[in-house]
Amino acid sequence: MADDSAAGPSGFACPLPLRDYPHVVMGHGGGGVLSRDLIDHVFLPAFSNPLLDRLGDSTVVDIASDMPRGCRLALSTDSYVVRPLFFPGGSIGDLAINGTVNDLAMSGARPLYITAGFVIEEGLPLGDLAEVARRMGAAAARAGVRIVTGDTKVVERGHGDGVYVNTAGVGVVPAGITIGAEVIRDGDVVLASGTFGDHGMAIMSVREGLEFEAAITSDTAPLHGLVAAMLAVCPTIRALRDPTRGGVATSLVEIATASGMGIELDESSIPVRPVVAAACEILGLDPLQVANEGKLLAIVPADEADRVLAAMRAHDHGGEAVAIGRAVARHSGMVVMRTAIGGTRVIPMPLGEQLPRIC
Amino acid sequence: MADDSAAGPSGFACPLPLRDYPHVVMGHGGGGVLSRDLIDHVFLPAFSNPLLDRLGDSTVVDIASDMPRGCRLALSTDSYVVRPLFFPGGSIGDLAINGTVNDLAMSGARPLYITAGFVIEEGLPLGDLAEVARRMGAAAARAGVRIVTGDTKVVERGHGDGVYVNTAGVGVVPAGITIGAEVIRDGDVVLASGTFGDHGMAIMSVREGLEFEAAITSDTAPLHGLVAAMLAVCPTIRALRDPTRGGVATSLVEIATASGMGIELDESSIPVRPVVAAACEILGLDPLQVANEGKLLAIVPADEADRVLAAMRAHDHGGEAVAIGRAVARHSGMVVMRTAIGGTRVIPMPLGEQLPRIC
Repeated sequence: MADDSAAGPSGFACPLPLRDYPHVVMGHGGGGVLSRDLIDHVFLPAFSNPLLDRLGDSTVVDIASDMPRGCRLALSTDSYVVRPLFFPGGSIGDLAINGTVNDLAMSGARPLYITAGFVIEEGLPLGDLAEVARRMGAAAARAGVRIVTGDTKVVERGHGDGVYVNTAGVGVVPAGITIGAEVIRDGDVVLASGTFGDHGMAIMSVREGLEFEAAITSDTAPLHGLVAAMLAVCPTIRALRDPTRGGVATSLVEIATASGMGIELDESSIPVRPVVAAACEILGLDPLQVANEGKLLAIVPADEADRVLAAMRAHDHGGEAVAIGRAVARHSGMVVMRTAIGGTRVIPMPLGEQLPRIC
Repeated sequence: MADDSAAGPSGFACPLPLRDYPHVVMGHGGGGVLSRDLIDHVFLPAFSNPLLDRLGDSTVVDIASDMPRGCRLALSTDSYVVRPLFFPGGSIGDLAINGTVNDLAMSGARPLYITAGFVIEEGLPLGDLAEVARRMGAAAARAGVRIVTGDTKVVERGHGDGVYVNTAGVGVVPAGITIGAEVIRDGDVVLASGTFGDHGMAIMSVREGLEFEAAITSDTAPLHGLVAAMLAVCPTIRALRDPTRGGVATSLVEIATASGMGIELDESSIPVRPVVAAACEILGLDPLQVANEGKLLAIVPADEADRVLAAMRAHDHGGEAVAIGRAVARHSGMVVMRTAIGGTRVIPMPLGEQLPRIC
């Protein structure tokens, strides 16, 4: 063994400190020692909790105490491919937690567990990956969810774009809560939790190098607390949507289609920050088609609308909540805008990609 | 409206059949009409079930009847980046279902629900995507799991590689089952459900253009039925692993490390098909480091080993099951091979990537 002094305990011998690469290499995805390095030095410090730390192929959770009689599970998944990875007000890490938390919240669920899958491009600076992980961990802590299991793959340079993140979420829907567009009725009120278009225009202003008097920052935020506050005063909320990719237009057309009702919006009540409106104007975009990451739309019975609005405004993430329209029996499946000058126009579902890779 | 005959119900009018692209375009990831086309024409026909068909941001499942008193949830996730997308014996779609089903099964869980996230490269032929989806749907049906929610993103050409698939899985672990390396004891027996290296060498033989007398095909298969049969005769199975990326070497070193025990293997009992052994020889690979996608390793109490082996051999996916070694109190944390000629050598955990993008 005298000649073997450079060999580690696993028999690995190399004159160069291979394991100290400052960038991700293909070997980090191999499932061996380098993969374990990545987990130990990048992911565990950011996500650590007793369930994750077991590092099995799967994680077993004792959910019985979280599931009183009559409640159900909500499941959701999203992949995140936003670029740049870091932007004003957030990062891919924040979106990966808040986006999946919000998808669960839109079922009325209390989010509990998150799984995380990473597809990393060879060459990504390890510092960038660690910062993404750090922000995911911080967002999970803020949202009160635990990242309980994960997976890492590495693809060759030119077959990815830094890092793509997938999260799946598990939450518990309390007994008696049934949210779904099919229960919408004529006269129900459409509520918005705040201004539209902030996230999408924050990303676009960075990509296009636009500067405005006021900074545009992403609205990324977890909304399950807001939803819980709303359900506490109105357990019969008809429908909830977070208008992300495709914006408010897509969410409302989907609701109109699923419910068989029409939706009428009042243009003068649509909440858009002046700086966001200006940025949309410059880029030729409709704020109703721009992604949001910390806003929700709610459809509620007319006689409960004021109470729900008050609950929203009392919450951190609903301070600027407003009523923006109503469900109507006429023009089934369509969303119609009543304009400020008294006309009407149909709001179509966007065809395709107005803002690629916005989330 | 007389001049408007080319306009669809959402006001879309175009002289070209934009929506009939034979390849994925960026707009398919935009969350609008094109995204919906993809869901309606590619994913729903392949995955259709009443839970998925609701198409909400999240899916609510009534799991109460599947969760008798004392049972727990198992959660798992994996991203799949294998190339080529289709290979002898399987496809990325089969791996995406079976791999996640197997991760759940290694906790002793009965897999129930799968979430699916797709990151698609612009330009992928829609026919290829549809075939991936079709195979995922078929694999899910075979495994008895339901794909209950999903997500699709599109990235620009040169920032992906056809399609990357993430799945997360939810399963139920029956009351009284606790599988974990920490309960391994001196003298426990290591069982293998079949031959090693088939999946990895099937992929490599395609990539390298190698031809052998016998075809090498992937062993991709769902293993939860085999695990259930094993648990039925031995509820005290100590540890289960599916030796995927990093192979048997990685799985056993992880078990040895987690248990604080040593593991001794008998080289003469290691099951490798002659054609796989030959392919490994040509490419300079160790079959113990090559990925499997339909095999498991089990550590069981010595006095139960014969009974478990018999149960494995009676099952479709365990016909070639054998005992390959034992847990020992000496050389804690290490895996040692007793060679056919009476020597011993240490089996190290692979450093990095022997076979990139094998799953």
